[in-house]
Amino acid sequence: MTLSPERTLPTPTRDEIFAAHEGGKLSTGLSAPLRDPRDLAIAYTPGVAEVSRAIAAEPALARRYTWTDRLVAVVSDGTAVLGLGDIGPRASLPVMEGKSALFKTFGGLDSIPLVLDTTDVDEIVETLVRLRPSFGAVNLEDVSAPRCFELERRLVEALDCPVMHDDQHGTAIVLLAALEGACAATARALQSLRVVISGAGAAGVACARILLAAGASDVVVLDSRGVIDARRGGEKALLAAETNPRGITGGIAEALHGADVFVGLSSATLPEELLATMAPDPFVFALSNPDPEVHPALAARYASVVATGRSDFPNQINNVLAFPGVFRGALDVGARRITESMKLAAARAISTVAADDLAVDRIVPSAFDPRVAPEVAAAVAAAARRDPAAEIAAE
Amino acid sequence: MTLSPERTLPTPTRDEIFAAHEGGKLSTGLSAPLRDPRDLAIAYTPGVAEVSRAIAAEPALARRYTWTDRLVAVVSDGTAVLGLGDIGPRASLPVMEGKSALFKTFGGLDSIPLVLDTTDVDEIVETLVRLRPSFGAVNLEDVSAPRCFELERRLVEALDCPVMHDDQHGTAIVLLAALEGACAATARALQSLRVVISGAGAAGVACARILLAAGASDVVVLDSRGVIDARRGGEKALLAAETNPRGITGGIAEALHGADVFVGLSSATLPEELLATMAPDPFVFALSNPDPEVHPALAARYASVVATGRSDFPNQINNVLAFPGVFRGALDVGARRITESMKLAAARAISTVAADDLAVDRIVPSAFDPRVAPEVAAAVAAAARRDPAAEIAAE
Repeated sequence: MTLSPERTLPTPTRDEIFAAHEGGKLSTGLSAPLRDPRDLAIAYTPGVAEVSRAIAAEPALARRYTWTDRLVAVVSDGTAVLGLGDIGPRASLPVMEGKSALFKTFGGLDSIPLVLDTTDVDEIVETLVRLRPSFGAVNLEDVSAPRCFELERRLVEALDCPVMHDDQHGTAIVLLAALEGACAATARALQSLRVVISGAGAAGVACARILLAAGASDVVVLDSRGVIDARRGGEKALLAAETNPRGITGGIAEALHGADVFVGLSSATLPEELLATMAPDPFVFALSNPDPEVHPALAARYASVVATGRSDFPNQINNVLAFPGVFRGALDVGARRITESMKLAAARAISTVAADDLAVDRIVPSAFDPRVAPEVAAAVAAAARRDPAAEIAAE
Repeated sequence: MTLSPERTLPTPTRDEIFAAHEGGKLSTGLSAPLRDPRDLAIAYTPGVAEVSRAIAAEPALARRYTWTDRLVAVVSDGTAVLGLGDIGPRASLPVMEGKSALFKTFGGLDSIPLVLDTTDVDEIVETLVRLRPSFGAVNLEDVSAPRCFELERRLVEALDCPVMHDDQHGTAIVLLAALEGACAATARALQSLRVVISGAGAAGVACARILLAAGASDVVVLDSRGVIDARRGGEKALLAAETNPRGITGGIAEALHGADVFVGLSSATLPEELLATMAPDPFVFALSNPDPEVHPALAARYASVVATGRSDFPNQINNVLAFPGVFRGALDVGARRITESMKLAAARAISTVAADDLAVDRIVPSAFDPRVAPEVAAAVAAAARRDPAAEIAAE
């Protein structure tokens, strides 16, 4: 693969970036303007009292007569922000505002960032339970592992609305779609690939699981201590039982030797000499943000397909392909849960859109392809209707 | 005073009201559109990481590079919604959305409703402390008395940002402005008036206090047990010490006999026979929402000035004249507190705008007078700069 220069955008300058963030990136607006006393009498007193009375008598009407039915809370404690780590809730806010902007742009969903000045799982769950009437869904974002696994599980139990930790499942959905795209573009089969996932945080674990669910047979996962094998305890032991079928031990060098796919989900660097030891024409997905594990131009000297998480290189494996449509589909049908079948349906929908115009530098559609979010939403909604675990609320 | 029919709007129909609330009244938007991968690279990854890094190094930059500096959280537990009482957080949401819509329309401030599924003061304080990095100010709304007094006091202590319970202080600010307008329109003096306030909830207590602070000398307050006098205990004893200088005992009949001003802030009905016992040409402010204590047309048979809280009658004493400018002024100068001097300055600014076009049916400006919020904001900001208690944050 060669990186065609016309598809590689110049990196934005620091001045451009700060100017674009002046005053923040979000605003609230009105669905209809308040122009005169009559508008006020309808939208506020005395008119609004009728609507409040109606919801008090029949709480389900809140879905119809408030904005919550299309409102996603983007929730973070700022403990694992992009590749920057634990920078706290205040510093995480520009990322959450960006996420809310993406929900609106790509999913047509309203969204508010709720950043929490606590990292205690009990306290975060308690806070969102108390705020439950304020939103329609929770997109959990940039929460550090392994807390994120318990937090997501506890929130799914405690809240009767869709909850998804996007760093886990959004990443996994798009990775699966991208890997299927790369296979189709190079006439390979997912089932026969040796896949190495570097990073066993939120994204790494979810990516391993969705690839296995989709039919991958040889997935090796590494964390900072090396290849996860049968000698590990706790949560990692569960992962070891499902992965590493050849019983590899050691580090990234041992894992990459002869591998077909590198999936980078940590901030560790991938040196060129290890790239050279992979199987011929490998796929290199260097997804760490903002700094990929290996520069795409360097990776392209060895790989048949190169992808990153960045919007300024081709093959952007970005969650934005998944989460707007996933939440939109779930909210459209009143699903209370985002299930495994809904996630697989989302990946399939992304692959289907990519198939129309597939190439080694177009293994996933552009984030700006207007077909993506509607196709994902429709596929997710259809999957939810077939899946009792989606717990669609009765009207 | 006669009610000129051309200024009395037809009451909106139920169908109109529900149609206007379909899907809720709020939405979120972007300060700049995301049109292409370059926009995405600036507003999201990789660009946003620069902004997050900068805030992590210097937390005060969050004011400049996020939306929180102009974001008001409209917070309620739904325990005292309009005149409807304790209808819960879900049913309160249309009112809070309306409030947020007013913040945007009149104050140019972004605003999100946060409704809480708990009525425990400790839990509400704890929840907002955890969410502190998510907003720039708190407008407390429709929380029942006497909890609202403790809740506001505790939040002011716990949060380093402007906090105001609008049902107390917004109402008080506009009532003072209206009473000064009524005095000016009829050549009376606030100091010489006998004022009766029916209702010792959130608004009643704050109204009594601001009138006394502005120079009123004879204020009598009633609650459901009658005139508050020296025999009461607790919070009411404090109120009794400042009010009721003639030592009236009894109920609304005893209080209104010979009174110049009726301020209705409860849902109790005011019968015509009591109106007839007031001093000549009284002021009747029947402010209960959505149903005034006495119909304005009936009150107008006796009173020289009639006002209500409704937008479909003249002389609307509505908090919307105060709160958008009060919060805007406080946020504009980075004030951490909303002080007594800022509230008095807000009332004076409203009166000043009304003075240009004063009449018995125009004692306050229209909510749609474009001068009101900017004048209030400027007056509040100027008062904050003079008042060390406003705790303006150093830049």
